[in-house]
Amino acid sequence: MTLTTTLEAQLQANTARATFTALRCKECGENYEPKAVHVCEFCFGPLEVVYDYEAIRQQVSRETIAAGPHSIWRYRAFLPVATDNYIDVGTGMTPLVQANRLARRLGLKKLYIKNDAVNMPTLSFKDRVVSVALSRARELGFTTVSCASTGNLANSTAAIAAHAGLDCCVFIPADLEAGKVLGTVIYSPTVMAVKGNYDQVNRLCSEVANTHGWGFVNINLRPYYSEGSKTLGYEVAEQLGWELPDHVVAPLASGSLFTKIHKGFSEFVKVGLVDDKPVRFSGAQAEGCSPIAQAFREDRDFITPVKPNTIAKSIAIGNPADGVYALDLARKTNGNIESVTDAEIIEGIKLLAETEGIFTETAGGTTVAVLKKLVEAGKIGSDETTVVYITGNGLKTQEAIQGYVGEPLTIEPKLESFEQAMERARTLDRLEWQQVLV
Amino acid sequence: MTLTTTLEAQLQANTARATFTALRCKECGENYEPKAVHVCEFCFGPLEVVYDYEAIRQQVSRETIAAGPHSIWRYRAFLPVATDNYIDVGTGMTPLVQANRLARRLGLKKLYIKNDAVNMPTLSFKDRVVSVALSRARELGFTTVSCASTGNLANSTAAIAAHAGLDCCVFIPADLEAGKVLGTVIYSPTVMAVKGNYDQVNRLCSEVANTHGWGFVNINLRPYYSEGSKTLGYEVAEQLGWELPDHVVAPLASGSLFTKIHKGFSEFVKVGLVDDKPVRFSGAQAEGCSPIAQAFREDRDFITPVKPNTIAKSIAIGNPADGVYALDLARKTNGNIESVTDAEIIEGIKLLAETEGIFTETAGGTTVAVLKKLVEAGKIGSDETTVVYITGNGLKTQEAIQGYVGEPLTIEPKLESFEQAMERARTLDRLEWQQVLV
Repeated sequence: MTLTTTLEAQLQANTARATFTALRCKECGENYEPKAVHVCEFCFGPLEVVYDYEAIRQQVSRETIAAGPHSIWRYRAFLPVATDNYIDVGTGMTPLVQANRLARRLGLKKLYIKNDAVNMPTLSFKDRVVSVALSRARELGFTTVSCASTGNLANSTAAIAAHAGLDCCVFIPADLEAGKVLGTVIYSPTVMAVKGNYDQVNRLCSEVANTHGWGFVNINLRPYYSEGSKTLGYEVAEQLGWELPDHVVAPLASGSLFTKIHKGFSEFVKVGLVDDKPVRFSGAQAEGCSPIAQAFREDRDFITPVKPNTIAKSIAIGNPADGVYALDLARKTNGNIESVTDAEIIEGIKLLAETEGIFTETAGGTTVAVLKKLVEAGKIGSDETTVVYITGNGLKTQEAIQGYVGEPLTIEPKLESFEQAMERARTLDRLEWQQVLV
Repeated sequence: MTLTTTLEAQLQANTARATFTALRCKECGENYEPKAVHVCEFCFGPLEVVYDYEAIRQQVSRETIAAGPHSIWRYRAFLPVATDNYIDVGTGMTPLVQANRLARRLGLKKLYIKNDAVNMPTLSFKDRVVSVALSRARELGFTTVSCASTGNLANSTAAIAAHAGLDCCVFIPADLEAGKVLGTVIYSPTVMAVKGNYDQVNRLCSEVANTHGWGFVNINLRPYYSEGSKTLGYEVAEQLGWELPDHVVAPLASGSLFTKIHKGFSEFVKVGLVDDKPVRFSGAQAEGCSPIAQAFREDRDFITPVKPNTIAKSIAIGNPADGVYALDLARKTNGNIESVTDAEIIEGIKLLAETEGIFTETAGGTTVAVLKKLVEAGKIGSDETTVVYITGNGLKTQEAIQGYVGEPLTIEPKLESFEQAMERARTLDRLEWQQVLV
């Protein structure tokens, strides 16, 4: 797992063109070489990538970006990958859907859905972070990649590793949804199903990372990995016509996605691609795992870990690594952090599907339900241009809604059987009829 | 369901810009107004859209297309929609993946996967045909849309109708995969589960179309609907750098997709966007429903309907509407039509996932398995630039492979439990170990 001399040389040659220069501790500011490290040796703070923004400013313009690939790699200058040999499987540039029907239902004027439920290749925003992490892993000489996952990350790591020809071992909690397990094993990685929750899986992986020299995308490669989420900020700004929205609503798991959307916006302001303006950041959690929402509600500046118990498994992180940063961001931007029940999550999934034709998983249901709650509480104004981040696909969490949605009317292959079914449906009004089906 | 005067006027005004002029019978050449009709009154032949290619040639260039939206609507001039008020939910422009690892495994030099498993919004090529059909349905004044479906079409019609605010009623065979049923009902259409196979569903829908005045995308709107598949030809030509491939492998259900890819290539040649060259067309069927492959094998020029019995339900059409045209195309381009067993289909799904990180449904497994069979039989040359069309996502047909893929290794959240599992895995070589898991 060590770098070969050839690789070192290649890396050296290519790093000349890279816009990132180091890793730096978010807490004490100590600098590190951009290798596979993620924790400060002095204060145990998390490390973050440092860029030369003057170099970036000279390399990019709205035009060069628009002329780039239709993927996250159009923002290559803002990503911590040293060579041009990155892995591009079409990840990113998902639609920003103007959600007029949902907006009308909620009483908003301008609402957009950033739809990562159709991200490539594995239908969640994790394809962004994994594309970046595995590109960097290859540069750093890793031949085996790994992750601790609530499901989506496992799908993405296994798929992109398969495409890139990297060996792969993923760790998941043993009670994961069937679609997420199958959507991982199909790519033939080694899959470890750990009898425990995500936080236990994560602790085990930290130990394995220390002993096995594998590239764990969300542990020793985390500084690179997490930068991939910035593209969710860049894309929205570009898709809005090089403008920032007024309000963002996004799910909170570790809290990383949330803060990186903000970092994406800030970097675009910094290099002059968009004008600065205040953007409010609101976060969504499931009540059964809402340590950040609880801290927000109780006006605490620390997170008390919880034991997750919710259908929204993909965001069920009881001890969120970036929780305090998310908390801070919501407060300083005049946003909110809110939680919703499992029943509200299911209603959120149905609401988005019915109004916009988008089928999201439980995390997306959480976000839509929180959007609704915030609008009803007057915490999102009807005039605010609001962007809601939908981060994963409903086909992966089918068991969560089975039994809570309508069922087909079974008929014989005859016109008269069809007419009878229509008659039955008509005699009840549409709402009652749906209730009967539920 | 009739056109209002306002709509008529709007339509008239906009049709001035349209490049299509009529519908024409494919058999006898009789012309029809471009309304919701699909069968010739004289000879019962299918109707097809007629275009003014001189007008198209004047409207489009490689540059205007490349500057258009990143969706099928960049090819607007080639599609039968009269107004600019079409429904764009990001459908199309799916990745053309250079499949180096699969190519190496099979012994090919240049292999591409056209990956509609990540098409938007519902992860199959049907989003293309439905986007076109519902856009046209709205122009023609329909407020209720419908379809006869093997699953993917139901997903797509329900989702895009929800987004567009159209009422929707879909018909499916009662024995469909759970993911396809849930992926339809979630959008709250009326769903009729018909006790019968697709061909029986289709016959029932023809009767309903005649009596209810609904817009059935694949019946009375079929001439418009089927044109959507041409975009699978346009995109591949554009993504190959405005060139045609040497060989195409695509699944055959009704046979429409197959012939429309060819039509897309031909139209690009006709208006001067690409140079003409011979392209071989090979079709894939599941042995349990292979009426076109059987006719090809037996050198017949007519199709004998069969009763479907295969896990590849999305392509299980026993009486394919465009079967003879598909047969003719394969023959005249020096291609082949081949079928594979259900076991080979599962192997095809696994092969594509392992080598390229793409998880496809049974139809895609069929196509990959046929690709393999044709290469092994020397019917695709190693030097031919080959494009394989993957038309749907594996998350929708999970039951088809459950039990045939590996399972996770269950461990305790302890380093030593992980090491033991790794040891167990290592003692068997990788291949044997996978067999144990299967």
